[in-house]
Amino acid sequence: MNLDTFEITIFLFSIGVMLFAARSLGELLRLVKQPIVIGEILAGIILGPTIFGLLLPDQYNFLFNSSKNIEIALDGITTLAVVMLLLVSGIEVDLSVTIKQGKAALYTSIMGILFPFTIGFGMAYYFPDLLGIKHESMRLVFALFVGTALSITALPVVARTLMDLNIFKTEIGFLIIASAMLNDLVGWVIFSIILGMVGSAVHGFGFGTTVALTFLFIFFTLVIGRKIINFILPYIQRKITFPGGVLNFILITGLLSAAFTEFIGVHAIFGAFIIGIAIGDSAHLQENTRDIIQQFVTNIFAPLFFVSIGLRINFIQHFDFSIVLIFLVLAFLGKVVGCGLGAYWGGMDKDKALAVGFGMNSRGAMEIVLGILALRFGLIQETVFVALVIMALVTSISSAPLMSIFLRRINFRISFTSLLSPKLIIDSSATDKYEAINELCLLVSEQIKIPPKKIYDAIIKREKEMPSGSMNYLALPHAKMKIEKPVVAISINQKGVDFGCIDNLPAKIILMLLVPQNENELQLKLLSEIAKEFKSAEKVEQLLSTNSHREFVTLLKNRTN
Amino acid sequence: MNLDTFEITIFLFSIGVMLFAARSLGELLRLVKQPIVIGEILAGIILGPTIFGLLLPDQYNFLFNSSKNIEIALDGITTLAVVMLLLVSGIEVDLSVTIKQGKAALYTSIMGILFPFTIGFGMAYYFPDLLGIKHESMRLVFALFVGTALSITALPVVARTLMDLNIFKTEIGFLIIASAMLNDLVGWVIFSIILGMVGSAVHGFGFGTTVALTFLFIFFTLVIGRKIINFILPYIQRKITFPGGVLNFILITGLLSAAFTEFIGVHAIFGAFIIGIAIGDSAHLQENTRDIIQQFVTNIFAPLFFVSIGLRINFIQHFDFSIVLIFLVLAFLGKVVGCGLGAYWGGMDKDKALAVGFGMNSRGAMEIVLGILALRFGLIQETVFVALVIMALVTSISSAPLMSIFLRRINFRISFTSLLSPKLIIDSSATDKYEAINELCLLVSEQIKIPPKKIYDAIIKREKEMPSGSMNYLALPHAKMKIEKPVVAISINQKGVDFGCIDNLPAKIILMLLVPQNENELQLKLLSEIAKEFKSAEKVEQLLSTNSHREFVTLLKNRTN
Repeated sequence: MNLDTFEITIFLFSIGVMLFAARSLGELLRLVKQPIVIGEILAGIILGPTIFGLLLPDQYNFLFNSSKNIEIALDGITTLAVVMLLLVSGIEVDLSVTIKQGKAALYTSIMGILFPFTIGFGMAYYFPDLLGIKHESMRLVFALFVGTALSITALPVVARTLMDLNIFKTEIGFLIIASAMLNDLVGWVIFSIILGMVGSAVHGFGFGTTVALTFLFIFFTLVIGRKIINFILPYIQRKITFPGGVLNFILITGLLSAAFTEFIGVHAIFGAFIIGIAIGDSAHLQENTRDIIQQFVTNIFAPLFFVSIGLRINFIQHFDFSIVLIFLVLAFLGKVVGCGLGAYWGGMDKDKALAVGFGMNSRGAMEIVLGILALRFGLIQETVFVALVIMALVTSISSAPLMSIFLRRINFRISFTSLLSPKLIIDSSATDKYEAINELCLLVSEQIKIPPKKIYDAIIKREKEMPSGSMNYLALPHAKMKIEKPVVAISINQKGVDFGCIDNLPAKIILMLLVPQNENELQLKLLSEIAKEFKSAEKVEQLLSTNSHREFVTLLKNRTN
Repeated sequence: MNLDTFEITIFLFSIGVMLFAARSLGELLRLVKQPIVIGEILAGIILGPTIFGLLLPDQYNFLFNSSKNIEIALDGITTLAVVMLLLVSGIEVDLSVTIKQGKAALYTSIMGILFPFTIGFGMAYYFPDLLGIKHESMRLVFALFVGTALSITALPVVARTLMDLNIFKTEIGFLIIASAMLNDLVGWVIFSIILGMVGSAVHGFGFGTTVALTFLFIFFTLVIGRKIINFILPYIQRKITFPGGVLNFILITGLLSAAFTEFIGVHAIFGAFIIGIAIGDSAHLQENTRDIIQQFVTNIFAPLFFVSIGLRINFIQHFDFSIVLIFLVLAFLGKVVGCGLGAYWGGMDKDKALAVGFGMNSRGAMEIVLGILALRFGLIQETVFVALVIMALVTSISSAPLMSIFLRRINFRISFTSLLSPKLIIDSSATDKYEAINELCLLVSEQIKIPPKKIYDAIIKREKEMPSGSMNYLALPHAKMKIEKPVVAISINQKGVDFGCIDNLPAKIILMLLVPQNENELQLKLLSEIAKEFKSAEKVEQLLSTNSHREFVTLLKNRTN
């Protein structure tokens, strides 16, 4: 059986159009600092029956409904695409990160599954009609599905959000990533069990067999398979054409695992995800190979899959406000409270715990993949699927702004004296202010990982707008930089340097303050704290006559209390 | 329409198996120094009805004939694969190389199309039954098809062969690549015209319209489109996510062009190929982007396509010895004589011209793509398709060994004196043989692009096996290296150095000879020429008393004649 000329034309054209729409909307969303995947999903909704199909029904039908064969061919491509997407997602998961994060990650991820799962399951089990169940007979499975759908965090979206907020490599960032990884794994295992319950009619295995085979597969892949892969990867990279051999190895094992899990009744993507974890864990997998497969999948296959979601369904026709609202409330409540509590019990304070909660709230690919399968197996109605997609979009879009509210509150608690460190104090004999500032830039450069020249330029620019000489021998050069938290560095210059001080005295204590961008209020607060500290000439004399930097810091800290 | 669980399982499993077979056979063929593509085609023949289907018919049918939907989905993937393959082939074509090679490339490529086309066309037109025509009514189109199928050289296979022979960057190598590129372009244009003639019933355009649209498309893409692409590429690379944006740009333009040419009746792959040329020509296309798309296509998509060839047909059942023989004879005759004559008229001598002829003889992807389409349009029988595939395999496999016969004959004509150059002679005051050899290694290193240490090690290794001191003040250190042609470098040392000479005299003329690997006979010939040259003590005395290196060379050269 072959596609004919007409079908080939439409097939290639529609893939081209899908990729174009995905990239255009994706870039648009990137401009407003949102994850690209949201643009790709929106592109599908626009290209699908919801908008394009409504406005130009003939053209829409010509492009997407002309022939059954085209639909099958497109379904083949998107199936392959989602398998590849999960394979790459698995490769990105590094379980050792979770283990390193310890108690806090464990609590956060367990609570981040348990709590949303419980409220989702409870709600769906006791009020199935409110949530749009399709067949009353499937009540238990439906409730399990809703619980699971609410508890899987979208790892790629979360990672993207953390990078955008510039907190990927902070304590909170590590905790969120570690928890999301474990969360993913556990969520998928639950999901595969549900599939075993639903699909037993299709694949012919009993529920018990499917679950047993699933756990056997997980155990074999993550324990034995991981070691085998780690053992043979160097051999493949050395003996077989590089990087072609490794690329093929990854794909072949991915496809065969996917086929296996589909065969035992837990959907192909689960196998691809698990084998991805085993492959990604190997230290022998080279960056170059990772990059090729990653780029191709995230730029070609993933967009095709995400666009195809919107093509399946009319989002306006199947929009049910109450179901959407219930799912949104359950989603926010479940994740924010669950993860928040977990992080809190894991030792974080309230604001940090809430920031973690909102950080873990993003849903994305996984809920939607799950939703598609549930729709296909007749477990949910179209309205629930639409609600799931909207829930995924809203939680993802709102994650960054809501997180930053709490991040700002955390930052705002920072006091000037808590930023003092003897290591960031120098004795200087600089003779002008440029030299003095330059010394301080060199001092902090390594700590904040920004080249000294860049800091210097920012400080001098600010200095030219308004000289930072204060009074009582104090100068306060400051600027905003791309950093995670404020930095204070001090130069003690017994001779004094001209900083254009108000009282015409030379500056003997040059205090440089760097504040994260967008933190206006925090900067004002810190500057006023500093001004208060140096108000009395007597205090400053005492500071200037301390014998060590440690003593300098202690004196300042005691004075404040 | 969706694939069901069973279909997804088989679909993913069969893709995994196809990739695995392609990689395994490909690596096996690489071990015996053959192009990987041959292994991929053989993998398909083994997996298909010819072998797997014959030995295990039930398992074969289960895997490849269980469901019409799987076939359609696989056809979708291979269609996409061949479009991507042609897109990448187009990107590799650089027409400016052809222009630079001038007259010789022009003659070679024109004759390399004209001659095989003529004999193929003539044979097929006057004896259509001998070549297995399907419908007598299609005689003209059939003859055109046979002519074209015989005249397209497989650029990727040729490039691979040249690299394996280590002559990619020689005069002959450049000429072959340049001719093959032009050859590809012209061959595809003829092919697209044939498709216009055959397919007019399918796509509804008249023959004239199709041809006119084709030329308009070529003109627009290669003249205007190329400039537009070159203009916007830097913008895309700067403004849009990199490399995702460029990857998508290449794929989207590729898919839309493919859909367009399919629409006007000249098959999708033609559009992908032409737009590929336009994209590849841009100096702004970065190596990184090229690499990602190239790796993914050559390792994932191309193998799937090449394996799928063997899945279509039973090669034993449809093997017709006389048709295979006729195609083989026509193929060899057409290309070797045609390109040989072209290169000869372009200014090459007979041996070089024949080397070019055999170098251009490889067929591969293109003939087979062409054959598949011809089969689909009912233009040829299965027997002809099988003959085409075998012809492609035999010409590709035989290209390297046959070329090297003539390359060896060319090398064998090289005489010792033709290798002399005043630039490669130095006056030395080295005091031992290691120093003397080292000086010579440093001298030739840059010319042959091999680090001095590597040459030194090879020479010393040979020296330890058997000291190279000869007699009459001559020492002859020599080794085989990865070089294109022999190199002679001479060190004149008036004091003399101990080289273990037979006559116990010190060596005053140290002549280093480097010969390409595998050139045993050539080395023997050169060594004996040198020995003859330095036989008389009188000659050597004269050489040692010359006043300049130029005089030294002239003296040696005159003596020989």
